[in-house]
Amino acid sequence: MENQKGSNDGKIDGLESRGREVMVANQRTTGTCESLLRILALALTLAAAIVLGVNKQSKVVPIKLVEGLPPLNVSVPAKWHYLSAFVYFVVVNAVASAYAAVSLVLSLANRGGKSSSSSSRLVVIFLDVIMVSLLFSSIGAAGAIGLMGREGNKHVQWKKVCNTFGKFCGQAAVAVILSLLGSIAFVFLVMLSARSLHKKITK
Amino acid sequence: MENQKGSNDGKIDGLESRGREVMVANQRTTGTCESLLRILALALTLAAAIVLGVNKQSKVVPIKLVEGLPPLNVSVPAKWHYLSAFVYFVVVNAVASAYAAVSLVLSLANRGGKSSSSSSRLVVIFLDVIMVSLLFSSIGAAGAIGLMGREGNKHVQWKKVCNTFGKFCGQAAVAVILSLLGSIAFVFLVMLSARSLHKKITK
Repeated sequence: MENQKGSNDGKIDGLESRGREVMVANQRTTGTCESLLRILALALTLAAAIVLGVNKQSKVVPIKLVEGLPPLNVSVPAKWHYLSAFVYFVVVNAVASAYAAVSLVLSLANRGGKSSSSSSRLVVIFLDVIMVSLLFSSIGAAGAIGLMGREGNKHVQWKKVCNTFGKFCGQAAVAVILSLLGSIAFVFLVMLSARSLHKKITK
Repeated sequence: MENQKGSNDGKIDGLESRGREVMVANQRTTGTCESLLRILALALTLAAAIVLGVNKQSKVVPIKLVEGLPPLNVSVPAKWHYLSAFVYFVVVNAVASAYAAVSLVLSLANRGGKSSSSSSRLVVIFLDVIMVSLLFSSIGAAGAIGLMGREGNKHVQWKKVCNTFGKFCGQAAVAVILSLLGSIAFVFLVMLSARSLHKKITK
């Protein structure tokens, strides 16, 4: 009887240590996934900010100043900071990439330590959700202005400008797509953190 | 000795039952907070969709068709569906309010039951984050177009229209503010769910 009890205790100890090993392995996988997603979010939002932040194009447009005289060729520039939606987009993406860099460094420094506990996970979820909100609002703003530039609108008599500034519009579209991918990375980060909290309960 | 052990066991039982009571009370408070936030999110996003969805204004504008003749008074309408950003805003807010209604009913039905477990909480967090993303992108789009209508932009030669359609622009601004408050309610819902998971670990 005593022997059987001892053998059962041994089995339970074995299972517990196996469970602990699986948990540590899971935590490591989550940590690696988080780091990769933060690197991705950092790279994409930084790229989006740079691609739109360096965006400019000059086009020579013939303008008729006086009737009867030949039109004057004037160089018309298109710059990202001419539109407040684009300024907001660049600022938000720069802030998001800086946050991604800081949070990546902190998550690597605290990996496995006490600070990577559920309390810090809660703060990280909050900050990640704030980034999701800011990024999506900037994507909406830049996307709406970009689409207006591409399509124009006859009701408000805003003419399309992308037929003249094609390269500028193309570069803005690339920046919006990059930022959208970066924002999706942040959504995944929120889900990963929530899943990590959930796993701690179910284990 | 036997008596002392019994008294200790009684104390532990008392503490455990007290702890369980506190946990149940906390869960109830979280449930009430969640319901209130969902009602708020539902009301605000629905109001935003309606306020912009019924938005229209007609203005009589004098237009000179032929030189030398007096200008012709033409009634020019401004309707929400003339601008794709506003259509996107109304659709997203309608979807978000429908989701808030369904999730409210489900959360009330499952209150305290097995389905209000940590697994369903994870799904709710995911859907709430999707709503945050959609809502903020629609706020960004409608906000950027609204601001362009109010300020105009000399670089792209888009003239401001809000000096003519003041009531229309004012109503659009109210819709954007209502939706912003609704989106913040969704952000709080994500945080509440995450906190609820966190509490289950620390207890």
